Amino acid sequence: MKTVSGGVCAAKGFKAAGIHCGIRKNRTKKDLSLIYSEAPCCAAAVYTQNLVKGAPLLVTKDHIARGPVRAVICNSGNANTCNANGVEVAEAMCALAAQRLNVLPQEVLVASTGVIGQPLNLDPIREGIAPLVGALSTDGSDDAAEGIMTTDLKKKQIAVEFEIGGKICHIGGIAKGSGMIHPNMATMLVFITTDAAITGEMLQKALSTDIQNTFNMISVDGDTSTNDTVTVLANGLAENPVISEEGEDFNAFMKALNTVNVYLCRAIAADGEGATKLLECSVTGAKDEKAAKIVAKSVICSSLFKAAMFGADANWGRVLCAIGYSGAEVDISRVSVSFESCQGSVCVCQNGAGVPFSEEEAKKILLENEITIAVGLGDGEAAASAWGCDLTYDYVKINGDYRT
Amino acid sequence: MKTVSGGVCAAKGFKAAGIHCGIRKNRTKKDLSLIYSEAPCCAAAVYTQNLVKGAPLLVTKDHIARGPVRAVICNSGNANTCNANGVEVAEAMCALAAQRLNVLPQEVLVASTGVIGQPLNLDPIREGIAPLVGALSTDGSDDAAEGIMTTDLKKKQIAVEFEIGGKICHIGGIAKGSGMIHPNMATMLVFITTDAAITGEMLQKALSTDIQNTFNMISVDGDTSTNDTVTVLANGLAENPVISEEGEDFNAFMKALNTVNVYLCRAIAADGEGATKLLECSVTGAKDEKAAKIVAKSVICSSLFKAAMFGADANWGRVLCAIGYSGAEVDISRVSVSFESCQGSVCVCQNGAGVPFSEEEAKKILLENEITIAVGLGDGEAAASAWGCDLTYDYVKINGDYRT
Repeated sequence: MKTVSGGVCAAKGFKAAGIHCGIRKNRTKKDLSLIYSEAPCCAAAVYTQNLVKGAPLLVTKDHIARGPVRAVICNSGNANTCNANGVEVAEAMCALAAQRLNVLPQEVLVASTGVIGQPLNLDPIREGIAPLVGALSTDGSDDAAEGIMTTDLKKKQIAVEFEIGGKICHIGGIAKGSGMIHPNMATMLVFITTDAAITGEMLQKALSTDIQNTFNMISVDGDTSTNDTVTVLANGLAENPVISEEGEDFNAFMKALNTVNVYLCRAIAADGEGATKLLECSVTGAKDEKAAKIVAKSVICSSLFKAAMFGADANWGRVLCAIGYSGAEVDISRVSVSFESCQGSVCVCQNGAGVPFSEEEAKKILLENEITIAVGLGDGEAAASAWGCDLTYDYVKINGDYRT
Repeated sequence: MKTVSGGVCAAKGFKAAGIHCGIRKNRTKKDLSLIYSEAPCCAAAVYTQNLVKGAPLLVTKDHIARGPVRAVICNSGNANTCNANGVEVAEAMCALAAQRLNVLPQEVLVASTGVIGQPLNLDPIREGIAPLVGALSTDGSDDAAEGIMTTDLKKKQIAVEFEIGGKICHIGGIAKGSGMIHPNMATMLVFITTDAAITGEMLQKALSTDIQNTFNMISVDGDTSTNDTVTVLANGLAENPVISEEGEDFNAFMKALNTVNVYLCRAIAADGEGATKLLECSVTGAKDEKAAKIVAKSVICSSLFKAAMFGADANWGRVLCAIGYSGAEVDISRVSVSFESCQGSVCVCQNGAGVPFSEEEAKKILLENEITIAVGLGDGEAAASAWGCDLTYDYVKINGDYRT
């Protein structure tokens, strides 16, 4: 398996585009994206578990249930959520794209991200749809990744090449994250394309399984969005033997999907609102995977710990505190904690109590922008990782005046 | 019932003191407090549910089980938690106080607050105990309240006078909060004294019942501390008929206790680390109390919503979002939201969707420093309130470099 360029256009037959149509006032910010497959795709998706669900999710869910898919349209700047006419507007977005692409409205999926509770004006989309479709190209992943960004600072895309049954396959994705990131089933918006041939059932199985260890293990601020969606489109143009059951081929696909997802997870966490550091909490020695996950996520979600990491402060007591209130059954007297980065590793706690360490050494390690918090529970063989970011002045700044 | 001065010394027979003994480097900050009753007290307490428990909690729990109590000693600047010799040090603190007070070590309760995982040096306490006991006075509640503060900016104390069986009774308390505040059983440190005569069993019942609606309903940062403790000492010097069962007298006591607790809860939330605003989420129309509590607490805990309140931004979508992921069964299409302060009230959402409102009016309301978020669920008769504070630059500043 190797990384390749092209993002969502790395897989054969996919094109993408992103433009500024006018949903956002700032003309330098793209706000409308499109992904298109020249062949019909089977699709899988996972959605937020928030009871408040964005209208686009409802429409996407319905369209996936109706059969093959050809395109995804997505706007930023407005979440089209908690609006009385939300479903109507989301359906209209699909219809506008479908008309220009000469496909059925039900073959178009839709997503929206941005402010909640303000009606989404269709006019800019109506005017933008012709230039958007006109801009579709195999080089368009960059623009599409840009069009779905809100407070994200960096585009998030990746693609990998892998082999199934002697055929070269590709899988690639784009994502947006930043704020309101604490996925429970999926993260904000992730679009993945693949030319691998796989049944819809196995595609959903692969996605639903993998997100348990990837998108469900990141948190920027503990707020589960109303619009979280991860979709995968598979058009089969790689011509591998169709994956229709578990086995070697399915495993190869799962591995490629996992590579894409872990990359996007880390990118979303690292580009969390206001973040200066990517934090990975790696838990080992747990009695089962559930305990490992609960502990990893509790550490990553602690506001106090996140603020300490912003200050490069080796305040491991906050790690112990977060483990203690996580709800997992843990024997605190066996817990060990180390901080790691490219500058090295320092053990700060063993058997649930502090051990002497060099503050200078710890500071050097924690001043890096990718930190691993290694937690050993001494209670078994299970392990899990969670990803997050530090809590900074900029998080407050961004969210203290987001809407106005 | 009327509010009176005196804090923990308002009840007959109680004295208190607070001094700087040297646990903290800053000589202007008091770091050691003592509360003393001239008569034996029955005591009740509730503790953190964090699996990591401060050594002082273990010692206090043991001492309460052994019988009547005469005093509480408490230091700030060090939590005496996750230290190998923690219990030994906590016992030594009780013994030092007991010797000077001429009581048994088991008659002294102990609490500590501050950094986790650094051994607590007994020397300053050993030297400070004589001046501390010497300073005990019926005017000492102020000093005692000061001696337990960490990053708190304001002293928190209150006392009320009430009547049971024709006798005047008093109940008063001091508290410290600020950071690592998301109590689950109790908040950081609260000491309450009363001269009401009540059995230990009924005292514990009153406390355990009341905290479900008071201290368990506040959150500053979602981090449940390792040292949370609320204790109540009752010395019976008011000479009311001893409260030994439920009934009118018990209800009068409960009402006084609740007044003290709600006051301290609001004071802790308003003085959360970095806070500029006290937020109260008041939920009505819930199908049961549990649902009301879950919703109220979810709103109060949302980082995104807290940051919006800092910016006086009427971003009600974040309230809906937090209701949606709270885990409570809610029919979103019936939800209404209003923002209220001394400047008035503005309804921003009805039937789960936005309604037109004046941004100017909303801004004026939200610029106040006490805001109520009124959530109607339209699903029944149950209600609950939760208290919290906004998320600010100063929260990040305080916690980005707390330990060093």
